[in-house]
Amino acid sequence: MEQYNIDELRELVEAKKYVELKTILAEQNEIDVALFLEELDPEPATVVFRILPKEMAAEVFAALSAPVQQHIVEAITDRELSAIIEDLYIDDAVDMLEELPANVVKRVLRNAKPDTRTLINQFLKYPDNSAGSIMTAEFVDLKKAMTVRDAFAYIRRTGIDKETVYTCYVIDASRRLEGVVSVKDLFLARDDQLIEEVMDRNVICASTLDDPEEVAHLFSKYGFLSLPVVDHEQRLVGIVTVDDAVEVIEQEATEDFEIMAALSPSETPYLKTSVLSLAKNRIVWLLVLMVSAMLTGGVLGKFEHAFAAMPLLVTFIPMLTDTGGNAGSQSSTLVIRGMAVGEIENRDFLRVLWKELRVSMLVGAILSLVNFVRLIITYPGNEMIALTVALSLFATVVIAKTIGGVLPMAAKFLKADPAIMAAPLITTIVDAVSLLVYFNIAMRLLNI
Amino acid sequence: MEQYNIDELRELVEAKKYVELKTILAEQNEIDVALFLEELDPEPATVVFRILPKEMAAEVFAALSAPVQQHIVEAITDRELSAIIEDLYIDDAVDMLEELPANVVKRVLRNAKPDTRTLINQFLKYPDNSAGSIMTAEFVDLKKAMTVRDAFAYIRRTGIDKETVYTCYVIDASRRLEGVVSVKDLFLARDDQLIEEVMDRNVICASTLDDPEEVAHLFSKYGFLSLPVVDHEQRLVGIVTVDDAVEVIEQEATEDFEIMAALSPSETPYLKTSVLSLAKNRIVWLLVLMVSAMLTGGVLGKFEHAFAAMPLLVTFIPMLTDTGGNAGSQSSTLVIRGMAVGEIENRDFLRVLWKELRVSMLVGAILSLVNFVRLIITYPGNEMIALTVALSLFATVVIAKTIGGVLPMAAKFLKADPAIMAAPLITTIVDAVSLLVYFNIAMRLLNI
Repeated sequence: MEQYNIDELRELVEAKKYVELKTILAEQNEIDVALFLEELDPEPATVVFRILPKEMAAEVFAALSAPVQQHIVEAITDRELSAIIEDLYIDDAVDMLEELPANVVKRVLRNAKPDTRTLINQFLKYPDNSAGSIMTAEFVDLKKAMTVRDAFAYIRRTGIDKETVYTCYVIDASRRLEGVVSVKDLFLARDDQLIEEVMDRNVICASTLDDPEEVAHLFSKYGFLSLPVVDHEQRLVGIVTVDDAVEVIEQEATEDFEIMAALSPSETPYLKTSVLSLAKNRIVWLLVLMVSAMLTGGVLGKFEHAFAAMPLLVTFIPMLTDTGGNAGSQSSTLVIRGMAVGEIENRDFLRVLWKELRVSMLVGAILSLVNFVRLIITYPGNEMIALTVALSLFATVVIAKTIGGVLPMAAKFLKADPAIMAAPLITTIVDAVSLLVYFNIAMRLLNI
Repeated sequence: MEQYNIDELRELVEAKKYVELKTILAEQNEIDVALFLEELDPEPATVVFRILPKEMAAEVFAALSAPVQQHIVEAITDRELSAIIEDLYIDDAVDMLEELPANVVKRVLRNAKPDTRTLINQFLKYPDNSAGSIMTAEFVDLKKAMTVRDAFAYIRRTGIDKETVYTCYVIDASRRLEGVVSVKDLFLARDDQLIEEVMDRNVICASTLDDPEEVAHLFSKYGFLSLPVVDHEQRLVGIVTVDDAVEVIEQEATEDFEIMAALSPSETPYLKTSVLSLAKNRIVWLLVLMVSAMLTGGVLGKFEHAFAAMPLLVTFIPMLTDTGGNAGSQSSTLVIRGMAVGEIENRDFLRVLWKELRVSMLVGAILSLVNFVRLIITYPGNEMIALTVALSLFATVVIAKTIGGVLPMAAKFLKADPAIMAAPLITTIVDAVSLLVYFNIAMRLLNI
């Protein structure tokens, strides 16, 4: 989908054909220009950034990664810096400042106009994981006494600085939110109608401290283009736009994938993460799970006499523990994802438990039967061993699925992240349980 | 975030206080009304649906589940049905028709106007997993010879039927896409400027047969509100709006979660899926994996003499296979997700391999060392056993991470879904490999 040939552009950079380069880049989407700059070394990237058309610079800058942003900030003049800051939307400016070293932040703030500086400082105070941290301040605010004609004039006068003009927010003198009106509503109204008559008073909004994940859910549920954010006094302080909500949805899914695979979540793309960081993100959980698995080994140690007497028993261990682990992960994954997208709530605990019990008995019965038949065929005359394995498998599947369905909900109830209760931990727990079940059944049925 | 008390509404339904109910529902968001109808039995749901304000009906209908939609379609008059069909956006109408039984579809099409019917039939032909299947036909098309003033007048005249008016598409006489212009651009232009002067000719667009996941990526990459879809002759046939892209992003993530947990993917929410369907979605992979694990058991069978001679060796099996499985899943998850969000491409194969090799040696060394020390302490005098376990663990982690990093990429290269190469399959493969490694090292170092 790239609209240009990257090698061609690179040659222009190397040949210092900046006029030609500028003409081509001016035609591209800002995101594509940013991706191109990321491919260059910091020096030429800065040079190319400075030749970009003025109206493009801020948007390209916002899409760059922190290291490239820092390099550019350090290389450009105070005047260029000031122009970029004023053109950036507040959320992008704040995102940038959070990544820069303190001395660079100081220089950036020194070059911002007083109003911008106040706004940036205010936005920097919102906690990292809050609606406030993903909102922006550039929205269209209308008054209910305006006519539709006034509103259009106002939007056309001020719209250039707004992140979205398509949903307008109607506020009173103390900035309290009274309604919303979309530009589509304005189009469909008569020019002399009052905003008061066309606005929708039933406004769905978020609070500055709401979880961004909850905010993103409102977008996927209602199909909004933007959502107003109010403070504790119901005053409108910002809006979240759908592109930021999409980013949150993708990041939250990535985070869940990582946690569910026993990784410490990281926002850096895989290929840009150093070997050391990758190792750090993986080692903690591997160590925890390894120690837990040692305990399972301890369980096994208690039955040394059993498998010394009947070594064949050992060969069924991988099948039992793997199937148990898989059965449990299936259930935990469905429940974790169901809770993440808001389909399963705490109050559904008993429904989940009851569902998992029935599903696990059905699935367990089929798996046990298949196993029993295969063992009867493979080891004729060893019916009791076949029965032992089949019974253990059935019990393992039922226990695994029940644990897998219930633990994520328990975690959420205890205000922990349900995603921890995924495959790795469930597998470890199920391993210990299934081995206990297996050898207890074996000792009883086989008299060892 | 619900704006009404559901029990209160339910009481109004039971008391048949429809006038009061209508007043309250008219104030709600259409999505919330649909969710409320889903909570009712089909009979009262249909009654309540029929009292909804006309301008609300189509949007509420579009948000209902297939069974409720069908119940309503069967209960309402041909005239009511016709009104709803004409008010539905084409993508919602097509979604509905794909779920309804053939006789109901016939009745729906009979009650659509000829133009609508032609359009619906055309849209029904796009394959299920294509951009065509998620696009809609209700967009604003402008001509480049129009002035900005003309464009505004045109939008205000026709906008009521459009899914979005905020991005307008400029087409020539044979409907070929020439440019896009946003309403924001129109606001910022002078009334007498020509569309030709304000439109952007560098249009990023999709083709009708593109994968919806790729289309959704364009939204998350560029932050679009809508994206034009063209046929093989570059004629504009529809648009995809951001709300549909968000739905695709969430569905694709859910599908990956399910496949990665060895589940056959399903679009029905967990709580609404029957026990039988849930069991069916789980049993296939469990059987496949169980049979694979039996093969692993077979591997183990070859070493019966080894653990008959030294039963202690068996107690380290869970730790080895679990750690191997976890280490491999970590790598495969990172690579699968990296490919899903477009951060890792086929051409990065060697970079991934090289990264995983280094990370796995680092992580493997730490885990082995911890294990060695703990075994030396727990089983003094058994240094050779400690060494066997530590070496096996190191080899297992390195092999597991290499396999985990490489297999998803190989799957993609072979046009299979990389998500299959997740925890369950990796664990099964790693199990067999790690046991082979373990017992071969044991037999050599311990002379058994």
